Amino acid sequence: MSFVRERIAALEGYLSGEQPVDPDVVKLNTNENPYPPSPRVMQAIATVTPDMLRRYPDPLADRFRQAAAETFGVTPEMVICGNGMDDILNLAVRAFSGPDAKLVYPTPTYTLYAVLAQIQASIVQEVPFGTDYELPFDQLAAADGRVTFLANPNSPSGTFVPARQVEELARQLSGVLVIDEAYVDFAEENCMALTRRHGNVLVFRTLSKGYSLAGIRFGFGVGHPDLIAGLMKVKDSYNIDAIAIEAATAAVRDAKYSRENCAKVRAERERLRRGLQERGFKVLPSQANFVLARIGRPSAQKVYESLKDRKILVRYFNGPGLADKLRITVGTPEQNDVLLSSLGEIVG
Amino acid sequence: MSFVRERIAALEGYLSGEQPVDPDVVKLNTNENPYPPSPRVMQAIATVTPDMLRRYPDPLADRFRQAAAETFGVTPEMVICGNGMDDILNLAVRAFSGPDAKLVYPTPTYTLYAVLAQIQASIVQEVPFGTDYELPFDQLAAADGRVTFLANPNSPSGTFVPARQVEELARQLSGVLVIDEAYVDFAEENCMALTRRHGNVLVFRTLSKGYSLAGIRFGFGVGHPDLIAGLMKVKDSYNIDAIAIEAATAAVRDAKYSRENCAKVRAERERLRRGLQERGFKVLPSQANFVLARIGRPSAQKVYESLKDRKILVRYFNGPGLADKLRITVGTPEQNDVLLSSLGEIVG
Repeated sequence: MSFVRERIAALEGYLSGEQPVDPDVVKLNTNENPYPPSPRVMQAIATVTPDMLRRYPDPLADRFRQAAAETFGVTPEMVICGNGMDDILNLAVRAFSGPDAKLVYPTPTYTLYAVLAQIQASIVQEVPFGTDYELPFDQLAAADGRVTFLANPNSPSGTFVPARQVEELARQLSGVLVIDEAYVDFAEENCMALTRRHGNVLVFRTLSKGYSLAGIRFGFGVGHPDLIAGLMKVKDSYNIDAIAIEAATAAVRDAKYSRENCAKVRAERERLRRGLQERGFKVLPSQANFVLARIGRPSAQKVYESLKDRKILVRYFNGPGLADKLRITVGTPEQNDVLLSSLGEIVG
Repeated sequence: MSFVRERIAALEGYLSGEQPVDPDVVKLNTNENPYPPSPRVMQAIATVTPDMLRRYPDPLADRFRQAAAETFGVTPEMVICGNGMDDILNLAVRAFSGPDAKLVYPTPTYTLYAVLAQIQASIVQEVPFGTDYELPFDQLAAADGRVTFLANPNSPSGTFVPARQVEELARQLSGVLVIDEAYVDFAEENCMALTRRHGNVLVFRTLSKGYSLAGIRFGFGVGHPDLIAGLMKVKDSYNIDAIAIEAATAAVRDAKYSRENCAKVRAERERLRRGLQERGFKVLPSQANFVLARIGRPSAQKVYESLKDRKILVRYFNGPGLADKLRITVGTPEQNDVLLSSLGEIVG
């Protein structure tokens, strides 16, 4: 017999991308930023003292909340910090959904939403995106979840819903709208301003992508103080470590550095897209630091495997609507050249 | 109307001890180690590279698992790492308990158990300890939870259940026994060996106390690989940051340093206990880095407040069975002298 609950034993769990140890691998599978974090982050880490490690960290990470408030034009009470955005997503599922409170999201999207909902035994309604990832606006509005999740830009598609359309959705919903902006630093606009105008909107961000800090696990949520207070109730007392607070605070205080990196990634995204199209891929327009590329033959799985043989990792999901597609992170110009050259050989 | 679920809105949440910014405060309220972490921890942090921050961390923290296996005489597959022990406790509640699976623990104890159970809508059976915190062995065995939690040493009492009695409990239970050994580095023995003999035993540890690393948020669980696999299913993919993995690995590889600090704390614990008794407190025998001290008059609350006026923080819980008691962390000899001298004035 198993000690684990049936619901959990039956769970597939979220499968993250491979993390190879081999430094020669061209790693374009988990949407890391190809450029290093701000030098000010390394300086901040160097100031950490033994006493800061010995003591518990600030439970609310107020230094970061203050810095984020200034950088993003909100107030500190509108900010909650988490151990990566996954931590905050988890809090939102726990605080707003459950066996008695429906969670709604368009699919295909970040598969963790479904995993978290299963763990929490939440009622879930998945609403399919259109063929080219058009937002199923009317169905989402009609479903009217106690909480609706929208990844914007979406993963794995990279597609983007304009802020004015998201705002209209927020208006029509009677529950909470969580906008997962993990990739928004690579997009043309964002929905942060909606948190000041709508009491039911939460914007979630991460430092993993735009700020090149996937290693430190730091995410944050922004919204009306009442929503933030609800999330605070279900968070671990000390959910972020003292070093991460220093690193994250330095990073958002140097947002200019991040913006410059993101601009480089955006320029390469367009070059990568054209290169893929020239090699026979159909590529959705992307506002993220990756593209979703469709291929007829050889099969996407075959291309994934051939690339892996050449020590190039991309992401293959093999889920509904994704079996003929690859999600490819935008790398440095050199990495993208290696990828495109290999693809030329594989599909050519 | 509130967007937060009723269950969550009704929740009190876990109230952690105050974290004063004033460096002059004598802080004896949250059981931090009064001595700094191993110098090797600081060295390990200094080796962190920008590339380690840019990439996602190792999802399983295998370097730490290997080091812990060697230090604690288990195998790496028997180890799971978490963002502080609270993270691991959360995983255990989610994996093993729920609306259909009873969670049992003796009280008074770490109040987070109750909070996590409420969030998860778990059936809970609390079993009171004896007057002097004797283990309610027969009632726990009869309750036979799908999961039973036992903090050993217990908080806030500091009392300890001998390993052979814990082992007998494990034998009698048909569910999982989670032994929360947050404070065990200050005790005379521990239950780690039980994880090799019993498929239903999990031992949870933290680096916050014995290893002076409350700031980095690192806990780990040890048990049969099947139990560990169950916990893995419900953890966040990347639940620990890359810097914390380096720091924690260096710390457990230098366990000797931690043992020497803990020996100093144990020696002071006895001196503190005698000093408190001389000032009219009744003090339970403690195997932790704190003592629970009872006072008739002035009231415990009054003593807590008078100490706070003197910039000395101790913990006052005001819960059932605790209204006449203070939990006092063992500090450095100098801190303990300041405390005892002030108490002499307050109660004298």
